[in-house]
Amino acid sequence: MTTLLESYVAGRWFRSADDGEPLLDAATGDEVARISARGLDYAALVHHARTVGGPAVRALTFHQRAKLLKALALHLGEHKPELYDLSLRTGATTRDTWVDVDGGIGTLFSYASKGVRELPNDTIAFDGALEPLGRQGTFVGQHVYTSRPGVTVQINAFNFPVWGMLEKLAPAFLAGLPSIVKPAGQTAYLTERAVRVIIDSGILPPGALQLVSGGAGSLLDELGVHDSVAFTGSAHTAGILRRHPNVLDGGVHLGVEADSLNCSVLGPDVHPEDPEFDLFVKGVVTEMTVKAGQKCTAVRRVIVPEALAGRVTEALAARLARIRVGDPRDPDVRMGALASLAQRDEVRKAVEALRSGADLVFGDPAGSPADVDARRGAFLSPILLRAHPGAGQPHDVEPFGPVSTVMSYETLDQAVTLAARGRGSLVGSVITHDPAVARHLVLSLAPWHGRILVLDRDDAGESTGHGSPLPTLVHGGPGRAGGGEELGGIRGVLGHMQRTAVQASPHLLTAVTGRWTTGARRDVPPQHPFRLSLTELEIGHTVETASRTVTLDDIAHFADFTGDRFYAHTDEASATRNPLFGGIVAHGYLVVSLAAGLFVDPAPGPVLANFGVDGLRFLSPVRPGDSISVLLTVKQVTPRINADYGEVRWDALVRNQNGDAVATYDVLTLVAKSR
Amino acid sequence: MTTLLESYVAGRWFRSADDGEPLLDAATGDEVARISARGLDYAALVHHARTVGGPAVRALTFHQRAKLLKALALHLGEHKPELYDLSLRTGATTRDTWVDVDGGIGTLFSYASKGVRELPNDTIAFDGALEPLGRQGTFVGQHVYTSRPGVTVQINAFNFPVWGMLEKLAPAFLAGLPSIVKPAGQTAYLTERAVRVIIDSGILPPGALQLVSGGAGSLLDELGVHDSVAFTGSAHTAGILRRHPNVLDGGVHLGVEADSLNCSVLGPDVHPEDPEFDLFVKGVVTEMTVKAGQKCTAVRRVIVPEALAGRVTEALAARLARIRVGDPRDPDVRMGALASLAQRDEVRKAVEALRSGADLVFGDPAGSPADVDARRGAFLSPILLRAHPGAGQPHDVEPFGPVSTVMSYETLDQAVTLAARGRGSLVGSVITHDPAVARHLVLSLAPWHGRILVLDRDDAGESTGHGSPLPTLVHGGPGRAGGGEELGGIRGVLGHMQRTAVQASPHLLTAVTGRWTTGARRDVPPQHPFRLSLTELEIGHTVETASRTVTLDDIAHFADFTGDRFYAHTDEASATRNPLFGGIVAHGYLVVSLAAGLFVDPAPGPVLANFGVDGLRFLSPVRPGDSISVLLTVKQVTPRINADYGEVRWDALVRNQNGDAVATYDVLTLVAKSR
Repeated sequence: MTTLLESYVAGRWFRSADDGEPLLDAATGDEVARISARGLDYAALVHHARTVGGPAVRALTFHQRAKLLKALALHLGEHKPELYDLSLRTGATTRDTWVDVDGGIGTLFSYASKGVRELPNDTIAFDGALEPLGRQGTFVGQHVYTSRPGVTVQINAFNFPVWGMLEKLAPAFLAGLPSIVKPAGQTAYLTERAVRVIIDSGILPPGALQLVSGGAGSLLDELGVHDSVAFTGSAHTAGILRRHPNVLDGGVHLGVEADSLNCSVLGPDVHPEDPEFDLFVKGVVTEMTVKAGQKCTAVRRVIVPEALAGRVTEALAARLARIRVGDPRDPDVRMGALASLAQRDEVRKAVEALRSGADLVFGDPAGSPADVDARRGAFLSPILLRAHPGAGQPHDVEPFGPVSTVMSYETLDQAVTLAARGRGSLVGSVITHDPAVARHLVLSLAPWHGRILVLDRDDAGESTGHGSPLPTLVHGGPGRAGGGEELGGIRGVLGHMQRTAVQASPHLLTAVTGRWTTGARRDVPPQHPFRLSLTELEIGHTVETASRTVTLDDIAHFADFTGDRFYAHTDEASATRNPLFGGIVAHGYLVVSLAAGLFVDPAPGPVLANFGVDGLRFLSPVRPGDSISVLLTVKQVTPRINADYGEVRWDALVRNQNGDAVATYDVLTLVAKSR
Repeated sequence: MTTLLESYVAGRWFRSADDGEPLLDAATGDEVARISARGLDYAALVHHARTVGGPAVRALTFHQRAKLLKALALHLGEHKPELYDLSLRTGATTRDTWVDVDGGIGTLFSYASKGVRELPNDTIAFDGALEPLGRQGTFVGQHVYTSRPGVTVQINAFNFPVWGMLEKLAPAFLAGLPSIVKPAGQTAYLTERAVRVIIDSGILPPGALQLVSGGAGSLLDELGVHDSVAFTGSAHTAGILRRHPNVLDGGVHLGVEADSLNCSVLGPDVHPEDPEFDLFVKGVVTEMTVKAGQKCTAVRRVIVPEALAGRVTEALAARLARIRVGDPRDPDVRMGALASLAQRDEVRKAVEALRSGADLVFGDPAGSPADVDARRGAFLSPILLRAHPGAGQPHDVEPFGPVSTVMSYETLDQAVTLAARGRGSLVGSVITHDPAVARHLVLSLAPWHGRILVLDRDDAGESTGHGSPLPTLVHGGPGRAGGGEELGGIRGVLGHMQRTAVQASPHLLTAVTGRWTTGARRDVPPQHPFRLSLTELEIGHTVETASRTVTLDDIAHFADFTGDRFYAHTDEASATRNPLFGGIVAHGYLVVSLAAGLFVDPAPGPVLANFGVDGLRFLSPVRPGDSISVLLTVKQVTPRINADYGEVRWDALVRNQNGDAVATYDVLTLVAKSR
């Protein structure tokens, strides 16, 4: 008997007392491991996440969490060989495993990088701009995101045992949540191995990651208001989860990413000799055969112009005929086995249902490839169908395997109608080189999709393909696809957090958020803030500058020096006719240049560089003879974890002699941590 | 018999054939109207919205929709007197009606303004920055929001018959959705009147607004993937809606805003003689008595420091004693009637339940104020309770009337624990003048709330109070509050749309989105684009400038002229020691000033002004002797509807003699529609 997979609960590995169910090698039928979670204390699992894991993760800033994700990615990278070896047993080819293992590690790297670049080095995140709530400026609003004091349960599908875990773990961890991972049984041995590698590394805080090898048992019964369940799998199981009382009435957040009947649409502009024709055929065959078509993003519906349907079908069949199916241990094999014999039975049943509205064009659903033992290995050839006109089955029946159905359209609107019959998908692709076709199809299909790939000769070289979710783009879709959203860079993090509108005086809002708010107190630092290090600078420290008169000579000189002789700065008669100015005004760039001259303290010191300016707005014109002065205030300080400097965002307000705001902007600088 | 309220279906008013149920004046018990929707064709209602209303609304740009909302606000403003008159019959005082009617009109104005300022003059909206997806820049991603081709059903509560309708209608309409409004029966006559005013105005496109006066019947059975239901009301009804098969399995989006047990927390820093003490007491009494406490945002739980509990309770009771309850037609009355006798029975039952864990401090739940006929009018005095230590009832039982319960804490963490026992609320308030207390309480309470008000002496003058949702701030809360989000400015619009990640080549992405994408083709216009009007400019039109060498003299001169003598520009020895520069570099402001000198075409023409710069980043230093040139490309054109000019956003790329990017930014200009 093989090993019983263990669960990781409350800081220790738990082994069930019973024998468990066997998990079989997808290609050989040999037993790989056994699985059972009987006797697991689900209450202890959730309690540990709530009381140990959550507080430990939330004690870290976003940047600290991001740093741990990077360490984790590097560590997993060192353990790839053992993961690749074990992955063969799931029926996956090396290329399939690359998507799973390297794709998962890449997701960690992406979140590590985004977490540092796009989130503050703090535990709260900002959403949108300050909202003025009163005319005097004493009452303002700011939306912020804070971490939910809960746990997240991640129920994954069998097809991506590593990526599936990591793509959910990374954003949840960044959001401050402890994760409880429950992989699908069939390939749980690979997830268990990856979790062991992670746990053994000691990189994550205690309680941040726990594992259930086996059934979910009473797990959902333990969840409440701030907890969440992120589910990937069938619409049927999603329906069961949606009916759980804690989801219906208990406030548990449920995110669903369900299989969908994704389509790929060939544009009417494409001729068989165009590069887009081959790209389309290649793309469909790839989506049919990678992971033996066991991908929730695979192309199930091939939508082509009526006039090309025959040519496309022939080309697809010819290309499919070259796909060698077999044991993934054989390097010549292009498509491995389905996850299990039971899974193959399901696919065959789906094909049978599809055939009532479609003709078989390629493949033998009942047969199996030569040279393999199809009684023990879940092998199946790719299967291509051609739908009867108006058939409904291809829009309802999902074969979770190497199966696609070709259907045809005559007008663009018919193509959109066909696509929409899938009632919401994770992803669609449009293969066209025509801008008008691209615009019409993408904007019509967008409401039905979470992601749309537009493929043509220009992006084909770098395209990651129809079927690949990317960490920086949203993954999920409306309707049948479950209605959830995962990934999407920081969107996936904020989706795990609570958004709250905070209303306060600028002074107290500054205290709450740690970022200086317009209208809050400005403090005089002990010396010019350019002389203070990152650690000495305080939010609200302000330079109030002297004033400088801007003369007509200054403006004329600046025009000559820079070459910017725009008439509003140089020609009184024309400037007078300008409806916004009514006379000569100073260049906006002159105003900000002089402003810097007023606020900069020139000697070497902790301020290293000005690397940018955000949100510059010229609010009222500066006319010859006006005097300007600047208030420059420390708005936000972001120490970098791995450097001896950090970023300081300054609020700049340029005013004229009447106190009117002339320009506002944020100045971005790098400042050393010590003098 | 009074009039039977009508529904507005498929472009005509529908009157049920039966007699309907009577709706009674809350204060006098007289019949106001009758209500029934029996015989209403719900399928026709949804079909009309789907086939007539939706397409009509979505044919408009965001700016066109916003303009109609403004017209609607102005029109409703002219009909306030009749709405105020009718509102008296709901039991509302003039002040209550101001919240309902003027609050609703103000929400329209707010969305009209935000729609123009924060959304493009187009039908799709952008979400976040361009995501590079390949190293060569030929494959990029952009998240966009598109309108769902569906309908939205708005099920409103009885307490705000006008605001409740308008606060849901405004963001949905901006999002491109036709609305089907179903008010609560009790006060449906006021909603019906407001809808008549709107329909009669002819301002909205046909099918954009329909009304169900009466039961929802089979309405939900008609909904599918792209439809939504926005519900405000009890957690109980929300639970029924969540169980509808079209919500569970049909992809219908359900947003819930349910009553919650909102709290107001008095900070431990506040002494009875501080202004915050009075602000707290006033705020609680206001929340108890406005709309006779029938607000989902009312303060149900009053959380105060143990040492002050007695003082607070006394002060509240004293202030409540001064509230005159009675017929809202009497100008001296401060609190009107509950919506109905049945509603009063509910509140009395809730108070009875609360009293098993709390003592009555003020008010008589069984009695009624003098001078009124409490058999016909649903009058009830305000009721204040003081919770027994550890009592659970105040965290579970919601009295939807003028009822609050005082409870006390000893430590800040106890205060947070008490607040959290409400399991998620729409709003909480913190009354404190101490920055540390504000930060601790707000950040701890935020995950439990959709909105938090921090009230102190500084913002009290402009504060809109604990109970007022604002159009620019999110309204909704986690857990018991329903988990939904409404309003929040443009957030409330985007929440009605589908977010999709579009992957494409820059050229096709430009075609799809109508906004120029980095890496897309740059076109040479027939003449310098500063000579072209807004209508002549095309996305991608580009100025490729000559180059200019930046000399050491230029840098020195700029330093002297502007006064910005930062050492990196003036002192070779020190600049060499700067870890980022290693020698003298040009000022960033010099670079952008010279860039303008290169790209500006000086003569008077359609370009009126540069009003700002966005996202300026200095990517590599410009050293003495380097030459710079600029590519300035039309990125986005936004015609203003009510002006003879619009905004043009230009992509600016400054490069050095090696082709390296030196600076990137967006230049914002106003350009006339004609030359």
